[in-house]
Amino acid sequence: MAIGLFTPTWDPAQWLSTFRAHAPDIEIRAFPELGARGDIEFAVAWLPKPGSLQDLPNLKVIFSLGAGVDAILRDDTLPKAIPIVRVVEPDLTHRMSEYVMMQVLMHHRQQWRIEENQRAKKWDSFATPAASDFRVGIMGFGVLGQDAGQKLKMMGYDVAGWSQHRKNVPGIESFAGHGELDAFLARTDILVVLLPHTPETHGILNRALFAKLSRSGPFGAPILINAGRGKLQVESDILASLEAGELHGVSLDVFETEPLVKESPLWNHSKVHVSPHSAADSDPVHITRYIVHQIHRAQAGKPLDNVVDRKRGY
Amino acid sequence: MAIGLFTPTWDPAQWLSTFRAHAPDIEIRAFPELGARGDIEFAVAWLPKPGSLQDLPNLKVIFSLGAGVDAILRDDTLPKAIPIVRVVEPDLTHRMSEYVMMQVLMHHRQQWRIEENQRAKKWDSFATPAASDFRVGIMGFGVLGQDAGQKLKMMGYDVAGWSQHRKNVPGIESFAGHGELDAFLARTDILVVLLPHTPETHGILNRALFAKLSRSGPFGAPILINAGRGKLQVESDILASLEAGELHGVSLDVFETEPLVKESPLWNHSKVHVSPHSAADSDPVHITRYIVHQIHRAQAGKPLDNVVDRKRGY
Repeated sequence: MAIGLFTPTWDPAQWLSTFRAHAPDIEIRAFPELGARGDIEFAVAWLPKPGSLQDLPNLKVIFSLGAGVDAILRDDTLPKAIPIVRVVEPDLTHRMSEYVMMQVLMHHRQQWRIEENQRAKKWDSFATPAASDFRVGIMGFGVLGQDAGQKLKMMGYDVAGWSQHRKNVPGIESFAGHGELDAFLARTDILVVLLPHTPETHGILNRALFAKLSRSGPFGAPILINAGRGKLQVESDILASLEAGELHGVSLDVFETEPLVKESPLWNHSKVHVSPHSAADSDPVHITRYIVHQIHRAQAGKPLDNVVDRKRGY
Repeated sequence: MAIGLFTPTWDPAQWLSTFRAHAPDIEIRAFPELGARGDIEFAVAWLPKPGSLQDLPNLKVIFSLGAGVDAILRDDTLPKAIPIVRVVEPDLTHRMSEYVMMQVLMHHRQQWRIEENQRAKKWDSFATPAASDFRVGIMGFGVLGQDAGQKLKMMGYDVAGWSQHRKNVPGIESFAGHGELDAFLARTDILVVLLPHTPETHGILNRALFAKLSRSGPFGAPILINAGRGKLQVESDILASLEAGELHGVSLDVFETEPLVKESPLWNHSKVHVSPHSAADSDPVHITRYIVHQIHRAQAGKPLDNVVDRKRGY
């Protein structure tokens, strides 16, 4: 019995040593040096090479090393019957909420204007709205979205969530399904996106959607913060909406193509704040513990947590 | 009966109209056009001209327009028996917590490094500690400090407070008095200062104090965030401690002299983040409501809230 590690875009050394430290009883081998393929019962994957997860006759579970499984699901050769488990784990959740909280505060408090003033040695005090003046809308209101939403609520923001199915979170209005999307957008001054990437959400962040957001927030035009997946967004539409004054400011942690290409006008747009898909880079120790715990459960015949619904795509 | 408005550094127009809207039954006059001085029963002041609050024979209460009263107390001609009331009001408290939360997150998440990378079009992902890896210490653990502390705790930070008297806040260790200051500093990776300015706290943020802070936080050297009063800090010591690597980074909302002079090396120091005393610029409507409410209480013979202890200085 062995774990196979499929992380072709990363140096596997850190993950190998972390797994060996936390599961000394289980052998782990990094693709492509898998040895006898029949040994591999568990696959641990991040952006695996298409085709690399087939021909593993005794494979029981595929673990994603992150919350998103879109890259894994895109592989047509993926064995159909094998469960895929995604990471739903407090360390990752809390880090995402840190990113969301910081970005919302920086837009609200006009932090970049303050930094510009510092560079110009300009002492310029300007009126700042209160948190309660902003209606934050969280698109993708699962475990991550609810944690961020509750924290934003506690800071005084007026928070709502949107998801496929209605959620019950005290003090936060929950909008559900396509029928309620327009009403959710119309009441949203700051849109925080934590959606998974699925065929249904592909390109959902486009100019037509931005046009449905509130235009009556403290800054007039709305703010967009995307920490979900890059392929949710149409970057040319983001730029056009900024140009047309239909968006006031944007924070992007994810991009249509990653790493973001040097030629992208997003890099030096004064209203776009770029980070390198680092919103919720979880600690390998936490992720490893989570996966090892689930492997032990699977070996004991217990059910797996957070199994992906392939039809839904997350 | 009339209110006197003493805000010589501000255009009085906004405050006059806000007071007139919220207390149409009370006349308000802006210094120096006070009319018959015997009419003035309540003074509303921010950085009042020394001497301007004397010779008001029927003065009953002086209201500060902010949480700090150091500028008022510095006036030797201040009538000795008149109570001074400071602002302790949720809108101001929440705004201060927004500033503190944003600054702590920006230091923790190395936001300025991310912005520098954006300017250089550099896609550089680096390991980020978790909130729980940071011990935040809040110096000045009154109403403002406790609100900020509870919110930081909820984000996962390991929070302690230091104040003259011990406070009982669940999950937050409360250090009290000079005897426990060194222990508080020794466990603090991020020092958040919300102290009032009094003869005892004057210049307390000096190199000797910085040297007592933790050197074992995620970044080695500690971080300083001062949103209390500028005269708490010795700016030449801050620069020397940064130079010596005894401080990792600094956020200052307040300065020894305000506005901060153009010549100050704080403006363009890469590890110093400057804002123009705007951390908790409260909404005039909230402050006005708070003061009008207290005037009505005083007129009804009820006790005033948040009366300053002149000996303590806050």
